[in-house]
Amino acid sequence: MVNEKNLRDVGEAGILARIFERLGTARPGVLVGPGDDAAVLAGTGDAVVFASDAMVENVHFDLAFMTPADLGWRLTCANLSDLAAMGAEPWAAVVSVAAPGATPASWLERFYDGAAELAGREGLALVGGDVVGSPTGLFFAMAVLGRIPAGAALTRRGASPGDILFLSGELALAQAGLHVLSGEGECAATAAATATARYRRPVPRVALGRALRERGLATAAIDTSDSLTESLAHLARASGVGVTVTAASLPVAEAARDVASSRGEDAVSYALAAGEDFELLFACPAARVEVASQAAAELGVVINRIGAVTEPERGIALAADGEERPLTPTGFAHF
Amino acid sequence: MVNEKNLRDVGEAGILARIFERLGTARPGVLVGPGDDAAVLAGTGDAVVFASDAMVENVHFDLAFMTPADLGWRLTCANLSDLAAMGAEPWAAVVSVAAPGATPASWLERFYDGAAELAGREGLALVGGDVVGSPTGLFFAMAVLGRIPAGAALTRRGASPGDILFLSGELALAQAGLHVLSGEGECAATAAATATARYRRPVPRVALGRALRERGLATAAIDTSDSLTESLAHLARASGVGVTVTAASLPVAEAARDVASSRGEDAVSYALAAGEDFELLFACPAARVEVASQAAAELGVVINRIGAVTEPERGIALAADGEERPLTPTGFAHF
Repeated sequence: MVNEKNLRDVGEAGILARIFERLGTARPGVLVGPGDDAAVLAGTGDAVVFASDAMVENVHFDLAFMTPADLGWRLTCANLSDLAAMGAEPWAAVVSVAAPGATPASWLERFYDGAAELAGREGLALVGGDVVGSPTGLFFAMAVLGRIPAGAALTRRGASPGDILFLSGELALAQAGLHVLSGEGECAATAAATATARYRRPVPRVALGRALRERGLATAAIDTSDSLTESLAHLARASGVGVTVTAASLPVAEAARDVASSRGEDAVSYALAAGEDFELLFACPAARVEVASQAAAELGVVINRIGAVTEPERGIALAADGEERPLTPTGFAHF
Repeated sequence: MVNEKNLRDVGEAGILARIFERLGTARPGVLVGPGDDAAVLAGTGDAVVFASDAMVENVHFDLAFMTPADLGWRLTCANLSDLAAMGAEPWAAVVSVAAPGATPASWLERFYDGAAELAGREGLALVGGDVVGSPTGLFFAMAVLGRIPAGAALTRRGASPGDILFLSGELALAQAGLHVLSGEGECAATAAATATARYRRPVPRVALGRALRERGLATAAIDTSDSLTESLAHLARASGVGVTVTAASLPVAEAARDVASSRGEDAVSYALAAGEDFELLFACPAARVEVASQAAAELGVVINRIGAVTEPERGIALAADGEERPLTPTGFAHF
């Protein structure tokens, strides 16, 4: 770009000044905002929920398919999704960015704009961050805080045999979007638009997680940032239970069915291994199923009953065509 | 190494299991430890202090000069130093690591051992983290939480003309250590050992920061992670004041004097631009100088009076040989 200043030109102080402008310091409860050694938040007596998520160029994203604002949104979504899975109220976040000196300063501003857009919608205050150099490639890490009444967190641990498994949203929509963007799959234009939009701007299920926690509708919950099978395995292991999912009940997105077909793959297998949906998988006591469905409907969030929690001996299983077979967790290979 | 398993061999779940073993989950106040979507900490009603710091291979460190445990210690120190500069009590931290798949799993275990060693000394609970892939090079980000009574945080903002400037520890010790390690400078063996040890295992001034806050001894404080001149500039700008530092009073480390001399550089110039000391620079009301000196002595921390806060028109200045000259902030160039 002509006359575009890069990070080397503006320096650390210069880029931080531009970023802090975008973060909106005057938030209730933020006693010290960006620009000091640390941010300070007024305590509330609630329990504090604390998580972090990182994204690496050419591992978690390709700049050909994502704008800088998409990336800021997505990193924020991944972190909010962790809060959602605990049933927590979003509170505050800090961001660490490592970027090559040749990165345009405006690129980083757009990144923070995307992060601030989703953060603002979900009541998350961006209270600080640092920007450092990187020899090659971009690296982003966000750490996020939420609040929750003491003892109320939804963990992965509480599921019991007989609980019903629910999944929010549609399965494999984000992966179908990525495959369309990367030319690794095809589907009709309308479905492709929905899928690519979801890949670029996933939606964290914050309101659903909060409702599940407030109304006692989940004995265990986890987000599906890796894949459904990996989330099932984590929940089953943490709770010491088995889980059986019914293939016919899986809410595989239309785009995902088409993309899987264009790749010569079975839609269910494709969907079970698909990551980055940022949906919630949760176990609901059988007696609370109606209330859970109604609560989700009130929020305008689709949830689907996809299976049940079983005795641990039954392991992780898929029921299809009248048979049950063991399900091997597959998903994103990090290394 | 023979039969050494790397991250690709053990996978994300495998390495996280090894890491979580090292983090010590059973800590008072940690309601949910590592391994869920997020950690949960019991609220205390105190204000929450929140910061993050990142380190990138070949930008912030060279594997030739640091063991993995040194790096874990150092990342933890950088974060604790931010808490120290706010006068906060260390509370909890999460770590994001991006590493190539060929990284030995034991390398990452040693990294966490180093982080856990310093964290344990300072009462910081390591409550979570994620490990992701990196195409080239290592990237580490830590986010840290501290606690502090509401309204008590030491910021960079409160210094007034007439306040006395203090600096803890010795100046440029870490940089001298790095220059010895990298063959870019020389000094006597004993001084070199002290300096290289400080570079590898810096000490965050947590107890000093807490004492300054509890006893009302600082109107403003900042750590010297970048350089003394940059810290002076940040403090002066945030407080809307000038600062004058007296060259003769600067506690330049013996190793730094020798290394500077071996490089043909002036010791004071060398020391003013040196980063990574993780010392505290603070402004103390003139009437509290004796108490501050005594408080530091009780903690076994050396503090030196290096100058004074002035009217804003006087800017950032160095007094030497009976003259004052403007001081240009110089330090680590991030890009």
